[in-house]
Parts: sequence; C-alpha cells; structure tokens
Amino acid sequence: MPETQTKAPSFESRIPEGDNRQRQVCSDCGFIAYENPKVVVGAVVTLGARILLCRRAINPRAGFWTLPAGYMELGETAEAGAMREAWEEARAKIAIDRLLGAYTIPRLSQVQLIYRARLIDPAISAGPESLAVGLFDWAEIPWDELAFPSVRWALGHFDQVRGLDEFAAFSNPADETGNLLTGDH
Amino acid sequence: MPETQTKAPSFESRIPEGDNRQRQVCSDCGFIAYENPKVVVGAVVTLGARILLCRRAINPRAGFWTLPAGYMELGETAEAGAMREAWEEARAKIAIDRLLGAYTIPRLSQVQLIYRARLIDPAISAGPESLAVGLFDWAEIPWDELAFPSVRWALGHFDQVRGLDEFAAFSNPADETGNLLTGDH
Repeated sequence: MPETQTKAPSFESRIPEGDNRQRQVCSDCGFIAYENPKVVVGAVVTLGARILLCRRAINPRAGFWTLPAGYMELGETAEAGAMREAWEEARAKIAIDRLLGAYTIPRLSQVQLIYRARLIDPAISAGPESLAVGLFDWAEIPWDELAFPSVRWALGHFDQVRGLDEFAAFSNPADETGNLLTGDH
Repeated sequence: MPETQTKAPSFESRIPEGDNRQRQVCSDCGFIAYENPKVVVGAVVTLGARILLCRRAINPRAGFWTLPAGYMELGETAEAGAMREAWEEARAKIAIDRLLGAYTIPRLSQVQLIYRARLIDPAISAGPESLAVGLFDWAEIPWDELAFPSVRWALGHFDQVRGLDEFAAFSNPADETGNLLTGDH
C-alpha cells in the first residue's frame, strides 16, 4: 500500500463553538476529532456446562484468556456484534440469550455489553486474534491467567444466574473500575 | 473565537494496513478517523408514579418530548453519564436503580443504555437543550409527540416491569430498528 502520510496530524485542544468541553481540533483543517466512549460487545458462550474462552494472540494481554469480545462496528446491533466477535475469535456460531452485564471501564472510556449465549455448533477453532480456544468446566477456568478484570466479572455474574431464565443485567461490581491489578502485565 | 479552519478536511476511504475494513483516512496527514458506534445514556426517571420528560429545544426533533439522555462522555461510567444528562437537560438530581434497556439503532450506529431511576429532589427545570420539562402521569404521556421510537420502547418497557425490583434488561422490540416512521418529522 502506498504511504500517503505527508505530515503528522496536528491537533490542538479547544472548546468548539456551541460546545462545553475541550475537543481535539486539527489546527490545519479544523476537523473536530470527537472522542467518544467505545463499545465492546462479547459473550459468555456455553456448550452444556462448559464455557468458551480464547487465548489472546495480540496485545494487550497476549497469552491470557478472555471471552470472545471486541469493538462493535458501525451499522450492526450489539447482539450481532457479539455474534460476529465469537465467529472472528473462535469460529464459534452462537445464539444470544440475553444481556448478562453492561460494564464501564472509565479509564479506557469503554462500555462492555456482555451477553449470555449458547454455542449452536460444537466446532470451534482459533481465529487470527486467538492463539487457542477451549471449552472449560467451571473448575478448569484459569483464573490467574484471565486477560482482564471484566472477564472475571462476567464469569462470576454468569455463575450467579446459572439456570435462571430471567435475571437483571449486572453492572460493575461495587468499587471495581476494571483497572488491572498491580502485578498484572 | 477565531476561525482557524484553513481548508476542508480531505478524507478518503481505504483499508489501513492490518485492518479488514474501510476506514476514513485523511489524505493530507494520514490520520485515521475510526468511526465507532456512539453510546447514548439516559433514564426513565420517576417521582412516585410520574415520569420525567423533556421537550427538545434542539434538532433533531425539536419540540418533541424525550427522556433525559445524551452522548456518554469520556472517563465516566454509563450510570454517571445518565445522571449528568438528567442534570443537564432537566436540572434533575436522580438515583439510578438498574438498567432498563440496552437498545441499538443500527442506522445511527447508536447504542442506548437507558436506566430506571428515581428523582431524589422534586425540583426540576429546563436545561439549555430543553424547551420545557414535566412530570407526567402515564395517561398524560404525549405518545404522538415523542421524539424517537426508543423513547416509546423505554416507556413501554418501564411500564411492563413497574413495581418489580428485579427484571431482565430489555433489548429492541422484535423487528424494530428505531428508524422514524414515515410521517414523523
């Protein structure tokens, strides 16, 4: 691909007219790069009692285990995004049941919508962003090798409502912001 | 404020290296303007049986009634954003109860997280983006003057679980995409 970059973007922080917050404005062309929270969509996917986890091939947290999840794209529903991510990361075909948790990681300005879902075809395999995928019994979950606090939250919340048809969507556990603990890397 | 725009931004659509989708790339400076779904946070706010609605002062749908809701900002939780919007649009101090609905409007690439909340101080007044605010009994809700389909969804879902402490978060009603109906304006 030809390199078309001719100079570094030059953004300055100022409050555009009619706004009440500092925004990033390009000092060359006036483009306002609004920064908005990003939406991550994913799922706790089960086959019987076993839970689908993916070992990350990419940073952050390469080598650690996570739920199939990723950034929601334009023009899709959140549920469709969670299905797409399960396919991209684990070649998993899933059926969404209902919303398990709506979490926020303020430090990353990230909203995570994690659904409860079932694997509708037992065939799975690692997609390009996964080193490996697997179906884990609860006792087999590698708690010390989970990629992110929110993976632990979603798994714990999933277990709390296991067997329930209807349940309230969870939010962040009290006082948890989703920051990695000291010692995580 | 001085006008610093010197020329229009010049974006072209191409697939950046390592990506698998078309993105908007500035042909002058190489800046990749990732477009992500945006998060709207808001609440069905009650005082006793009455529901807080705001008459929009701004487009789209100026003059129509809506829930206090707006774009989530960086660095806040979704719940904090819903509280902020209630303050900005209706000078309402609210306590969040739980998530009522997680809706998606694919055409707008918008995720809406609408919470159930209580007004903790009966004083309300129109903020800068509202022409008026009011507390409506169910029979008084101006159904024909609601700003958006998702306002109707959230009100209907709120009514379905009125009096329940715990309930599952709702998603879009079946086959509803949130597009305005023909004849809306």
